[in-house]
Amino acid sequence: MTDSTSSSSPARAGSPVALILAGGRGTRFWPLSRESRPKQLLALDGRSSLLQETVARLTPLIGPESVWICTTASLVSAVREQLPQVPAEQVLAEPEGRNTAPAIAWAVQSMDASVRRKPVIVLPADHRVADSVEFRRVLEVASREASERDRVLTLGVSPRWPETGYGYLEVGLPYLTDGDVRRVNRFTEKPDRATAERFLESGNYLWNAGIFVFRGETLLELTRRHLPELAEGLERIAASPDRLAELYPHLPRVSIDYGIMEQLDDIATLTLDCGWSDLGSWQALADLLQSDPAEDAIHGDVVTHETQGNLFWAEEGTIAAVGVRDLVVVRTGDSVLVLPRERSQEVRAIVDKLTQKERSDLL
Amino acid sequence: MTDSTSSSSPARAGSPVALILAGGRGTRFWPLSRESRPKQLLALDGRSSLLQETVARLTPLIGPESVWICTTASLVSAVREQLPQVPAEQVLAEPEGRNTAPAIAWAVQSMDASVRRKPVIVLPADHRVADSVEFRRVLEVASREASERDRVLTLGVSPRWPETGYGYLEVGLPYLTDGDVRRVNRFTEKPDRATAERFLESGNYLWNAGIFVFRGETLLELTRRHLPELAEGLERIAASPDRLAELYPHLPRVSIDYGIMEQLDDIATLTLDCGWSDLGSWQALADLLQSDPAEDAIHGDVVTHETQGNLFWAEEGTIAAVGVRDLVVVRTGDSVLVLPRERSQEVRAIVDKLTQKERSDLL
Repeated sequence: MTDSTSSSSPARAGSPVALILAGGRGTRFWPLSRESRPKQLLALDGRSSLLQETVARLTPLIGPESVWICTTASLVSAVREQLPQVPAEQVLAEPEGRNTAPAIAWAVQSMDASVRRKPVIVLPADHRVADSVEFRRVLEVASREASERDRVLTLGVSPRWPETGYGYLEVGLPYLTDGDVRRVNRFTEKPDRATAERFLESGNYLWNAGIFVFRGETLLELTRRHLPELAEGLERIAASPDRLAELYPHLPRVSIDYGIMEQLDDIATLTLDCGWSDLGSWQALADLLQSDPAEDAIHGDVVTHETQGNLFWAEEGTIAAVGVRDLVVVRTGDSVLVLPRERSQEVRAIVDKLTQKERSDLL
Repeated sequence: MTDSTSSSSPARAGSPVALILAGGRGTRFWPLSRESRPKQLLALDGRSSLLQETVARLTPLIGPESVWICTTASLVSAVREQLPQVPAEQVLAEPEGRNTAPAIAWAVQSMDASVRRKPVIVLPADHRVADSVEFRRVLEVASREASERDRVLTLGVSPRWPETGYGYLEVGLPYLTDGDVRRVNRFTEKPDRATAERFLESGNYLWNAGIFVFRGETLLELTRRHLPELAEGLERIAASPDRLAELYPHLPRVSIDYGIMEQLDDIATLTLDCGWSDLGSWQALADLLQSDPAEDAIHGDVVTHETQGNLFWAEEGTIAAVGVRDLVVVRTGDSVLVLPRERSQEVRAIVDKLTQKERSDLL
């Protein structure tokens, strides 16, 4: 393996590496997702987990030897087990989740100087992409922009409905150098319904896909400029790597969007239209599995009579249903969840109650 | 035990005995009820099963030594285990269910001649009664009527809503001998909604509670008169008791209501207003458990958020629900059932499908 790793390792400074953020708790897929088995480690859409699919999707643009993964200490063993082809030392364990800016800057700092000169593609571990070829094509263009022009890019997806759960990018003029690459005029956090509809109609907005591309060195420089407290904390960690567990939890909690991206005068975007879905809820999964909204989306052993538009997910055991419509019903070995599809996001209310009740058996 | 049985055995011909019909399959409480564990063996409303409660409710009018139970061969061990105080030889196992007339006539025929001279109270094993004292008072009056005047009685319950799932008794004039005992003019099988509403308004109708009282000898005489084919079959069984398994399945399938009761010119009724419920569906159980229809009826480990009017029954594991109304959700170790309360009866559609699919693991 060492030989093949060395030989296939990209030599050019322009060859990108990937940094996959895999620390999410994934409460939105409770009861299937648990603290020890969050969404990114689940095979929601086939035999591979979303994390495994994320790594596989990057090949051949980025081989597993050029993949870094940032996760939490409690998940690091599970991640290494799912991805034996990724070098174990490139699976980094945060002692504690401190949001995305610390995770990304710390991971980039941990890379060799030669790697930090390359474009780094930061991407979530739990998204789904239908068209991998187009996905890689856009990543390759973005990497070239980052490498050759030292741009910082945040990728966008053409909105397909007035989603209120995503952030939006207001797109501005194209750069003269490349018609596909355009300026981001403004970031907008989760809008209300009316605003989201206006964004959709205007044609000037993209969903923020949470995929960022920049040279590693550039990100560290931007961190020093916009998040000096974080940069100082990371320097302390670099000076005393054995004190990581003690120092990391003192890093400021801040997202890369808010802490860096939204602070930049010049940030670029590319449109990533590749059948992207963040699979952010049971509702989103139902949409994906369902060809006809009048039918049910079904996984596992399910018996129905006069039902319509439901998602029935039997991970263990059997689900039987009569006469219900537009519900999500999920059965695991120890639990069952029942809620209306349109209220899928509110599974959080259950997780919150279980947390209050200290039901660690179910979390 | 033999001593106490002999000493407490009623000596008078008028002391009633009980015959409990406990052969039901109980599909209406699937997935909690199964072929091997039908409704009457479940503790739906406390720590005792409905069958155990049925036996306990008869004491002190009828002690366990005067109780006969007719069940199916597959349930006889479970019944004996639940009722060690009932003499094992009085727990009779039908080789196959052939409806109520064969079960009752065969059970009565199996009693000693001295017992057959007494009033026999036939009652289902799976009903619920709130006021046991009133229940026994009415049974005692009925037994006296059967014993002293050789009447045949079918007990009725004052209807509380226009139920379309029950049979009704049209009540006629009282007998001169006792103002409480009245003639039944007519039996009506499950009526349609409009008819049921008319019955309720008229005040002349009772629900047929499926509780019959007659002298054992009288029942056998009526069987010979109205169901001669059944009587002949029973004679063959009496002549060759070791051929029961072969002969019993040839007895005609007929209910005691249709085969005998509805054929009689002179049949009496007494009103049994004792908080009676046949617990015939999940809906009926929800009604019973629920003090406020805006709240949920809950059994077991259940976590809810903004739910209303549901029955959540977690026999094993946890049920979590958000935002649903008027559903029945039942979770067992291997299954979950979800249906609207008002469609509780349609659980049969699931059991039928499982039968078609030969899912004996779930039946």
